[in-house]
Amino acid sequence: MIALYSSPGACSLASHIALREAGAEFELHRVDFAAAQQRTPEYLAMNPKGRVPLLVTEKGPLTETPAILAWIAQSFPQAGLAPTDPWAFAQMQSFNAYLCATLHVNHAHGRRAARWADQESSHADMVAKVPQTVGESFRHIEEEVFKGPFVMGDGHSVADAYLYTVSRWMETDKLDIARFPRVHEHRTRMQARPAVQAALEAEGLKPL
Amino acid sequence: MIALYSSPGACSLASHIALREAGAEFELHRVDFAAAQQRTPEYLAMNPKGRVPLLVTEKGPLTETPAILAWIAQSFPQAGLAPTDPWAFAQMQSFNAYLCATLHVNHAHGRRAARWADQESSHADMVAKVPQTVGESFRHIEEEVFKGPFVMGDGHSVADAYLYTVSRWMETDKLDIARFPRVHEHRTRMQARPAVQAALEAEGLKPL
Ligand SMILES: N[C@@H](CCC(=O)N[C@@H](CS)C(=O)NCC(=O)O)C(=O)O
Ligand SMILES: N[C@@H](CCC(=O)N[C@@H](CS)C(=O)NCC(=O)O)C(=O)O
Repeated sequence: MIALYSSPGACSLASHIALREAGAEFELHRVDFAAAQQRTPEYLAMNPKGRVPLLVTEKGPLTETPAILAWIAQSFPQAGLAPTDPWAFAQMQSFNAYLCATLHVNHAHGRRAARWADQESSHADMVAKVPQTVGESFRHIEEEVFKGPFVMGDGHSVADAYLYTVSRWMETDKLDIARFPRVHEHRTRMQARPAVQAALEAEGLKPL
Repeated sequence: MIALYSSPGACSLASHIALREAGAEFELHRVDFAAAQQRTPEYLAMNPKGRVPLLVTEKGPLTETPAILAWIAQSFPQAGLAPTDPWAFAQMQSFNAYLCATLHVNHAHGRRAARWADQESSHADMVAKVPQTVGESFRHIEEEVFKGPFVMGDGHSVADAYLYTVSRWMETDKLDIARFPRVHEHRTRMQARPAVQAALEAEGLKPL
């Protein structure tokens, strides 16, 4: 049995949606950030990174959203969650790596500034820049990457669950989603998918 | 013909080494950061992210180190640069995602602090924390991830080219590699590989 450790609305929502799109059987474990559960000895014994998502399979633990998403897609091929053509697959991995290493990292400066600096004044400075850096990441996606109707074009993939997840952070990052009409339309359309609705409900979240 | 856009010693060195390990025919294009070549209109037309690595193949451009490395491994299967078992492949992708989104990002706060904050005092604060954050990333690799003799265990893979590349940043990040004996031994051993030696020479770099 697969187990996913997830915190409501965090980047782990992407892996959660992907598991539901795949039709996988899995247990969902909620990691409570308010109670710092990701830093308890029990959790660190499973995932020394102290982060979500953590996927535990019969073969062991797997971390990092792009790796988890690709593994889900490859383990449930009948769900068609990744292109089979190697070049198209590489483009999907490139998109997911960008979300992971650039967009998500830009966003994290708003909530986890203490990872990278010690002074309160630096934290405030980093928080203030988030709308600009995350906005630039969404502009890049909107204008230079997004093919439509899905991220990769006609084919729905795990990249869509990932984009949906990070697009939910826009309002807290003080971005007006109206500036990004293609991402906006994508977000709305994703929310019509049963897998997305079920994942939101299980995490206690509402469509946006 | 494949073309790789690379800046000496930058993260693009990993893709460069992987191409040589694969036995690929490719053209190497040097991107001169001192001349801000990554922000010229010509370069941005090829890669609007304004970064290296950029791989250009007959199918088009590909960016993001983990995506490029996996694509090289999959395109030159006879070189054996990635595990064929899906779970082992996912673990390699997880390692590469960690380098890309955590270790590399921690390192980047030392040189590119202006990406995430505006004040000089914040930049100095971020620069000062780099030995701690990058050190924690290497501690995690040394103690919790590295299997030996290669990153993934017995099998050499593109993850080794990536770890070698980022381990070259230790001295500039004010870390004593002696603290990380397994990573140190790996770095030394990687430098005995003809592909690594050829890549260093082509980028005008010396073994460390
Ligand atoms: N590169 C990792 C990042 C994981 C990550 O930063 N997760 C956040 C939630 S979105 C987390 O667990 N934060 C808890 C903390 O920093 O204490 C991935 O893409 O999976
Ligand atoms: N997530 C990207 C990051 C690429 C990146 O940040 N490259 C750096 C060199 S290590 C760069 O091009 N910096 C130039 C700049 O920021 O202007 C990857 O892993 O390929």
